[in-house]
Amino acid sequence: MNAPRQLQLGPDELTRLLANEFPQNFTGQGALAIEVAAPMVARVRLPYAERHLRPGGTISGPSMFGLADSALYVAILATIGWVPLAVTTNLTINFLSKPGQRDLIAECRLIKLGKSLAVGEVYLRSDGDATVVAHATGTYSIPPRR
Amino acid sequence: MNAPRQLQLGPDELTRLLANEFPQNFTGQGALAIEVAAPMVARVRLPYAERHLRPGGTISGPSMFGLADSALYVAILATIGWVPLAVTTNLTINFLSKPGQRDLIAECRLIKLGKSLAVGEVYLRSDGDATVVAHATGTYSIPPRR
Amino acid sequence: MNAPRQLQLGPDELTRLLANEFPQNFTGQGALAIEVAAPMVARVRLPYAERHLRPGGTISGPSMFGLADSALYVAILATIGWVPLAVTTNLTINFLSKPGQRDLIAECRLIKLGKSLAVGEVYLRSDGDATVVAHATGTYSIPPRR
Amino acid sequence: MNAPRQLQLGPDELTRLLANEFPQNFTGQGALAIEVAAPMVARVRLPYAERHLRPGGTISGPSMFGLADSALYVAILATIGWVPLAVTTNLTINFLSKPGQRDLIAECRLIKLGKSLAVGEVYLRSDGDATVVAHATGTYSIPPRR
Repeated sequence: MNAPRQLQLGPDELTRLLANEFPQNFTGQGALAIEVAAPMVARVRLPYAERHLRPGGTISGPSMFGLADSALYVAILATIGWVPLAVTTNLTINFLSKPGQRDLIAECRLIKLGKSLAVGEVYLRSDGDATVVAHATGTYSIPPRR
Repeated sequence: MNAPRQLQLGPDELTRLLANEFPQNFTGQGALAIEVAAPMVARVRLPYAERHLRPGGTISGPSMFGLADSALYVAILATIGWVPLAVTTNLTINFLSKPGQRDLIAECRLIKLGKSLAVGEVYLRSDGDATVVAHATGTYSIPPRR
Repeated sequence: MNAPRQLQLGPDELTRLLANEFPQNFTGQGALAIEVAAPMVARVRLPYAERHLRPGGTISGPSMFGLADSALYVAILATIGWVPLAVTTNLTINFLSKPGQRDLIAECRLIKLGKSLAVGEVYLRSDGDATVVAHATGTYSIPPRR
Repeated sequence: MNAPRQLQLGPDELTRLLANEFPQNFTGQGALAIEVAAPMVARVRLPYAERHLRPGGTISGPSMFGLADSALYVAILATIGWVPLAVTTNLTINFLSKPGQRDLIAECRLIKLGKSLAVGEVYLRSDGDATVVAHATGTYSIPPRR
């Protein structure tokens, strides 16, 4: 594991910044809620809300993808500070079981945080249930900083 | 490559069925448009519309994921007929270049279509531009049929 | 997480069975060593040996792939018993840092173990070093059992 | 697709360079044979030889991984010239059908070739058979050049 790093941005500050940059994900009904943002880790909640559902009440694939991707982004920003130009280059997601009709929780841990690439993994679980609904591994490209 | 297969469901019939089953993807402003649905292949268009955009006018990651996933589903249904319970088990997506401010086109080709698993790949390109915006490989689990 | 399961096959028994079935991986110089084989988890060691090296003394990509794949297989067999016909259907590997010039250790944990599919993840680290050298996520297809 | 590029290194020159750098893959019995090396594409043959086989005569997973990975590397080197420090960062492989008891052919096409990352896909087929045995998508990190 990489050496311990100092927290750059906590949940409240990140929520404020992301609500401004990505209003469609981080504001309004169904907005993602950052519960943990700490060096190399993040926990993000997707509220069980109409806009994330398919008929029948199942959380949609794109919403799960967006949650996993956002959790990676939050963990990176929490660790290295505000880098709005970091972009996802690769994401692999395995859908393992049907999510329950309640909030979905993403637990993210970065496995590597280098100068130009960050790699992390994300577990998605329904709130209060230990069953893994989906698992993702993703890579972000981090632009050079001054 | 697998043996040639007979078309089961064409673009019009699939659009009708999917609009009913997945209204949030296949109806309304920004609805996906099935342009080709033929044995082992599909082409699906994501209109450049407000609901798919991030601030700045870029098409969002979840919308690209949803487009790739839907193109795989359309190619499978076109080939084996209506199987609403087929589900994505795995999807790997590489984001390669920034999409243009116009429609995004998914070209899907199934690589394998077995009894219980289908695997295909999808190229995403901005309309009228040969640059690949994203590439996805995905697996669907197909439930046993009578 | 799935319900706790009873151990079916321990390290010694698995080593015996696998040495017979896959002699090129589990016998001879550089043979994989099963250190842990328990419900849903496995730890497997790749000895630092000539046959796994590229010039310069780096462990080769195919050897790392084989180690990750074998660790998944060991975790599955340890949990459900001997299923020689289980096969890898999908494996995603991220190479994160250069391995050291010593043994490589794979720590595997199954995330899902269903009737027909098993999904797990594997961390590869050089012996005695916490840095993650590679991370893999893989799926095995499990044939129907009587 | 990226703009056409000029060939930097052809099959013969690449074979000579790779035999020197990676003797275990490109020399001896079972050595990989570069059949096509051209801008953005490559075709590489894995001979059906003892060292690539599991008991029963099936080509092993690590050998297929190594073939796919090498085909990507050849396509990159053919296009941008000799870059021995380019390394695989991510590879996703889907195993689709059992290979035949004969040579395995990898057909690689680069999807993106940027300054620091190259992404390509590879189809593996048994010689003379159109069935896809495996499909891989991989990313190489390309070090800065003077």
